[in-house]
Amino acid sequence: MSDQAKRPEKINKVVLAYSGGLDTSVILKWLQTEYGCEVVTFTADLGQGEELEPARHKAELMGIKPEHIFIDDLREEFVRDFVFPMMRANALYEGLYLLGTSIARPLISKRLIEIAKEVGADAVAHGATGKGNDQVRFELSAYALNPDIKVIAPWREWDLTSRTALINFAEQHQIPVPKDKRGESPFSTDANLLHTSSEGKVLEDPWEEVPDYVYSRTVNPEDAPDEPEFITIDFEKGDGVALNGEAMSPATLLAALNELGRKHGIGRLDLVENRFVGMKSRGMYETPGGTIYHLAHRGIEQITLDRGAAHLKDELAPRYAELIYNGFWFAPEREMLQAAIDHSQANVSGTVRMKLYKGGCYVVGRKSPNTLYSEKVVTFEDDAGAYDQRDAAGFIKLNALRLRLLGQRHG
Amino acid sequence: MSDQAKRPEKINKVVLAYSGGLDTSVILKWLQTEYGCEVVTFTADLGQGEELEPARHKAELMGIKPEHIFIDDLREEFVRDFVFPMMRANALYEGLYLLGTSIARPLISKRLIEIAKEVGADAVAHGATGKGNDQVRFELSAYALNPDIKVIAPWREWDLTSRTALINFAEQHQIPVPKDKRGESPFSTDANLLHTSSEGKVLEDPWEEVPDYVYSRTVNPEDAPDEPEFITIDFEKGDGVALNGEAMSPATLLAALNELGRKHGIGRLDLVENRFVGMKSRGMYETPGGTIYHLAHRGIEQITLDRGAAHLKDELAPRYAELIYNGFWFAPEREMLQAAIDHSQANVSGTVRMKLYKGGCYVVGRKSPNTLYSEKVVTFEDDAGAYDQRDAAGFIKLNALRLRLLGQRHG
Amino acid sequence: MSDQAKRPEKINKVVLAYSGGLDTSVILKWLQTEYGCEVVTFTADLGQGEELEPARHKAELMGIKPEHIFIDDLREEFVRDFVFPMMRANALYEGLYLLGTSIARPLISKRLIEIAKEVGADAVAHGATGKGNDQVRFELSAYALNPDIKVIAPWREWDLTSRTALINFAEQHQIPVPKDKRGESPFSTDANLLHTSSEGKVLEDPWEEVPDYVYSRTVNPEDAPDEPEFITIDFEKGDGVALNGEAMSPATLLAALNELGRKHGIGRLDLVENRFVGMKSRGMYETPGGTIYHLAHRGIEQITLDRGAAHLKDELAPRYAELIYNGFWFAPEREMLQAAIDHSQANVSGTVRMKLYKGGCYVVGRKSPNTLYSEKVVTFEDDAGAYDQRDAAGFIKLNALRLRLLGQRHG
Amino acid sequence: MSDQAKRPEKINKVVLAYSGGLDTSVILKWLQTEYGCEVVTFTADLGQGEELEPARHKAELMGIKPEHIFIDDLREEFVRDFVFPMMRANALYEGLYLLGTSIARPLISKRLIEIAKEVGADAVAHGATGKGNDQVRFELSAYALNPDIKVIAPWREWDLTSRTALINFAEQHQIPVPKDKRGESPFSTDANLLHTSSEGKVLEDPWEEVPDYVYSRTVNPEDAPDEPEFITIDFEKGDGVALNGEAMSPATLLAALNELGRKHGIGRLDLVENRFVGMKSRGMYETPGGTIYHLAHRGIEQITLDRGAAHLKDELAPRYAELIYNGFWFAPEREMLQAAIDHSQANVSGTVRMKLYKGGCYVVGRKSPNTLYSEKVVTFEDDAGAYDQRDAAGFIKLNALRLRLLGQRHG
Repeated sequence: MSDQAKRPEKINKVVLAYSGGLDTSVILKWLQTEYGCEVVTFTADLGQGEELEPARHKAELMGIKPEHIFIDDLREEFVRDFVFPMMRANALYEGLYLLGTSIARPLISKRLIEIAKEVGADAVAHGATGKGNDQVRFELSAYALNPDIKVIAPWREWDLTSRTALINFAEQHQIPVPKDKRGESPFSTDANLLHTSSEGKVLEDPWEEVPDYVYSRTVNPEDAPDEPEFITIDFEKGDGVALNGEAMSPATLLAALNELGRKHGIGRLDLVENRFVGMKSRGMYETPGGTIYHLAHRGIEQITLDRGAAHLKDELAPRYAELIYNGFWFAPEREMLQAAIDHSQANVSGTVRMKLYKGGCYVVGRKSPNTLYSEKVVTFEDDAGAYDQRDAAGFIKLNALRLRLLGQRHG
Repeated sequence: MSDQAKRPEKINKVVLAYSGGLDTSVILKWLQTEYGCEVVTFTADLGQGEELEPARHKAELMGIKPEHIFIDDLREEFVRDFVFPMMRANALYEGLYLLGTSIARPLISKRLIEIAKEVGADAVAHGATGKGNDQVRFELSAYALNPDIKVIAPWREWDLTSRTALINFAEQHQIPVPKDKRGESPFSTDANLLHTSSEGKVLEDPWEEVPDYVYSRTVNPEDAPDEPEFITIDFEKGDGVALNGEAMSPATLLAALNELGRKHGIGRLDLVENRFVGMKSRGMYETPGGTIYHLAHRGIEQITLDRGAAHLKDELAPRYAELIYNGFWFAPEREMLQAAIDHSQANVSGTVRMKLYKGGCYVVGRKSPNTLYSEKVVTFEDDAGAYDQRDAAGFIKLNALRLRLLGQRHG
Repeated sequence: MSDQAKRPEKINKVVLAYSGGLDTSVILKWLQTEYGCEVVTFTADLGQGEELEPARHKAELMGIKPEHIFIDDLREEFVRDFVFPMMRANALYEGLYLLGTSIARPLISKRLIEIAKEVGADAVAHGATGKGNDQVRFELSAYALNPDIKVIAPWREWDLTSRTALINFAEQHQIPVPKDKRGESPFSTDANLLHTSSEGKVLEDPWEEVPDYVYSRTVNPEDAPDEPEFITIDFEKGDGVALNGEAMSPATLLAALNELGRKHGIGRLDLVENRFVGMKSRGMYETPGGTIYHLAHRGIEQITLDRGAAHLKDELAPRYAELIYNGFWFAPEREMLQAAIDHSQANVSGTVRMKLYKGGCYVVGRKSPNTLYSEKVVTFEDDAGAYDQRDAAGFIKLNALRLRLLGQRHG
Repeated sequence: MSDQAKRPEKINKVVLAYSGGLDTSVILKWLQTEYGCEVVTFTADLGQGEELEPARHKAELMGIKPEHIFIDDLREEFVRDFVFPMMRANALYEGLYLLGTSIARPLISKRLIEIAKEVGADAVAHGATGKGNDQVRFELSAYALNPDIKVIAPWREWDLTSRTALINFAEQHQIPVPKDKRGESPFSTDANLLHTSSEGKVLEDPWEEVPDYVYSRTVNPEDAPDEPEFITIDFEKGDGVALNGEAMSPATLLAALNELGRKHGIGRLDLVENRFVGMKSRGMYETPGGTIYHLAHRGIEQITLDRGAAHLKDELAPRYAELIYNGFWFAPEREMLQAAIDHSQANVSGTVRMKLYKGGCYVVGRKSPNTLYSEKVVTFEDDAGAYDQRDAAGFIKLNALRLRLLGQRHG
């Protein structure tokens, strides 16, 4: 194949984000043969719902030393330190997307860099393609955490540009090729505890409805129960802490909400979005628990957040979402926005009651010991002097003053 | 009652926003007796779904001269010049509310001021209370359009502060009191072609679910058809122009979408929001057609709007929504934002296909002669050189440069 | 005079922001006579450059109990906790104004409320007029810190609306009237360690140049030394800590910069600004040390702040400045912005060298142990591989992709 | 030298941005020899102050056909369609820089693309290096205006990476090398009617003061006249139209202000800025007329712009400036912002009086037929009822309401 001498840099040891699947197995072998370097595998449980131990076995078969095989359960860290902080911001990319793939990448890069330090590796490698956002997210995070790290992105480098070439390479190198991977997959997916995304092939015409078989995390709303289900979520300082009154860890809570969302067909999104690399792509996202959580968080903020804080958050949220989408989790401006957002959450505690029904998810009640909602002030009934309606006259008059001066000019 | 001499200003002729209902009838009489001025009534059809001719009859009964009774069908102007421009911005107040009440107020004020000019009135009057946003919206618009106009807000001035006092006043002055108005209404509503809002009384505890009888514009999702319905909406330059291929005027289109939304239980929102006057209130909104339209507009923008334009719009939208909510439609900064938004809509043309089902509303397809989505560029398949994956390496390297310099400092 | 019974509320004890001057002496007496309440005086040294002890004597003469006379030196707190945090934001109101008056008001209110708690007062009073911003700033801060406090703003209440009436009242009540206060002052001023502002009367025509005699804190640039002076300011974590290498407390540093600014005629600003209460006003500001400090802070940020952080700060700064100008120092949204800004300052340490000359103030050098400026990367000379110019091609290609897709549509 | 076969694409005809200097002459020859393509030269007069006819002669000597030599005076278009629209925004990059280089690039690209169309060229070429912003600006503009154009950036491609190699190439190809170009230049410059920038070499240490010999457009403030000079600038709809009452075209006005600025030492800026390509660089800018114009424009806006418009402009300006700096002049989001900004300028007409003195530039008066400043409203004197001070009480009360509700929660 290609000449190792042409590789830009000599690599001694590389940490590969390794799923155990065909593609990253090919990458593993390719790194060994092309770069002639030692490969360290890292396989993360982010709640994607797959067994991880097979990855260990496969890595061993490909000659990876046992001490170079890292398999970590990152589910709690993922939800606690990445998903929940993001949810505090009510972040939606392009108004609709809950950023399920974007938010997982910085955590994977963080572990890659930690492991690289631990094993003395000089490079990291990932299996993201050259057209997507994930390469950007992986690499920006890696460079931010270790500016001297080398990054290998085989999909941008190698000549295995067709499925056939990939499978040939696999067969040449005794990498088992599962039957269902022999043909072209009709779409590609990414999954973690927050969401499953699907894109490519059968989804590439944005006028065509997403076929039913693409969905894997939610029932079709038409097949959801005919009776609504009511739940409560408790929040403390902006983060969910209990479901139906039962205290849960972050990952446990999100997993439980995923089950509820799956059952009621909640969180499907068919989206054409703008990638950071400059093109539009069409994806399908299923974010069952995240959709419920997002709306619940808005619900509890409604009674616990001051208007000034709430509106500032709403103005900052699109930028914050864009930063996460583009891969700038470990950038100072994301951290600055996070500092502002986190400051606002000190009193975002209380309980939200929600109705789940056939794809829909509705806040139907919220209460809090920290509520700023004052029935006494707002009431249509006599408010016992809590609010003097005559104040409104002056309020309006001074708000109108500049408009009146403008009107006089035009007049 | 109170002494006319105490009124701050002598009024000769006032134009009253008059619905024909009990409250504005009392106001009409009160203006006649308190201010001793001539009253001109203005009744607008904004699609609230009530007969307007009875208002004429009632006004006549209260001594208003025929040439002083104005009844206007403003539905097309409302949708074309207010609702659609706002929808171009994807405006949501506090992330969720489609601003159905807010957007109607400036139009009413505009007509009040026009009529005042026509009949030589020196004042306008409205029936909004002193705790709400509507007083602000009416008055800011009125002052912006005529800085010398006087505004009378009876609810802030009079001593009819209880329902009993109001009814007594009505009876003293031979104003008919409908039976259902004798008791306290369990909630109050506002309606127009875009939405119906309800608030007060039974809705004042934000932990209590909104009772079923409060809803009037939509069926309960549980009672909606068991089969989804698919529709298409065509857009031209950012505005809806056809439903299922049939060309429609703005108001006709919105009315037709309302029917669809009603049938499928779409557009219910239970919200605790922050009023401009400083308090939180809990409302229930039904925006059936508007909800469908809003999502469809986002759908067509997904393929026709450049990322730079789309993200700038998303960042400006919360401010734009806040301005409309607070009553600043006729303020220069709203017009500036509108100029920016309208500039972005020149190519927002095409067709969106949507699925309506039991409260849910989903974009399932979109196409456009102006599409910026390029299957050729995005495809997982061979793209024939439309995109050079190696460009991504340089793109990432330069985006990472500042983060690496940061990392070196910390390192 | 007016009837105490008409006062809206019974006041027992009020803390008055008392300067010892004629106006607040009249207010003191008026509070005693009108409200019949006990008056507590609070006089703050914010660096306005006046003796405070005479205020004690005057208060005693008017019957204030010694334990009810509070005189505090707040200079260090003012600069450390208000001026410096604001300077971290590079805040300029309407692009030009360094907010010298605005930033002092929340501190005064904070002490008023603290003293009210200490002495069991139920109200505070201030001498700001009903047309200005200061009433808003005082009262918003007071209400935020104690929502139940009562606020008395005599200028909005009393009938002493002419200078003559005020002086008559003073004479009736044996309040000494200095000779220079008998006539109308040609302008009014406010001063503290950060600035002196002047407005009114001779300044009211914005076409007329500010007369020379209005300036009090700076020499005319024409009269400044003919030789430039060079200084250095050291910063640590975003705050100034030393002048010309000599460590100084915040207030000492600002005072020393004021002396330098005065000498070189730095920091004069003739401005027409937009008040929060809706009108435009013309003011003259002298901010000698603050102007130098502001530019120096930008100078040190240039080499220590990452681009993402710097640009986010620049986008947030106008809003932050508006909040301070409008009196929302103690509002959650100001605190959120402060959290974001403060997060950015951790590495803003180093030394700035400045040239002062005849009204001008120029950064001429900056260095920092935390510098992000890399001569190695930026150099026109051979950079030994620190930057690969070919990366720029990919960077540009992907940044251009969306524009090319747009161009193809138009083409 | 290098092998033409390795060039990525076959080019038939290229339009080169040609100054006539050594570097672009080498590029011209290199294009001929490396790409073997026909070269078209484009030389623009943007007010850089150099003779353009020598460029024609040099191009002819290098074999360019007369009909392929384009020399255009773009000064009026530059100021009218680029500088003035930008000045309407009060745009400052990183708070200080008036964007003199950035704003010229899109115009050059526009003409390159126009000429390419005219002569049937398939490529354009420029002399910007691979580390700077200008390559990005040239190329983004070119791609936006013609998505199919090819761009050649010799500095990123060739192997003439040292001064010696460049001069050797020149000598090999009979390109005359002026004596002062034989050695390394101590810094590099760019100039146009708006500014002169200098960077590199002697400026690379940001702690070292910029040497005096680097300045070329302004006298040292110490050498400026000892007497201040007063001038007036008239504006119409946001653009300057007259100096000292004499009507002038845009370029004439800017040139006249440049003379004034030069004489008084106005507009020097020593800046460390953040480049779009990810590094910090130190530059020195001289923007004599632009600095005066910028401040004058703010001055006229002070009395003619409503607060809402002014504050929105201030919030949008950093983004707008960043877009221009980064090269996105022809991007939809820049155009959207321009639409908003331009909308605000309809009444920005009137006269500003300024004082110029030893590096300083001060607005000392402004007047306008459209003024929104109302002496009647703002006056300390009796305002005859133009403003009711009691309105302020209600205004403050309702602005404080949410803060009081917050305070009660904490209380």
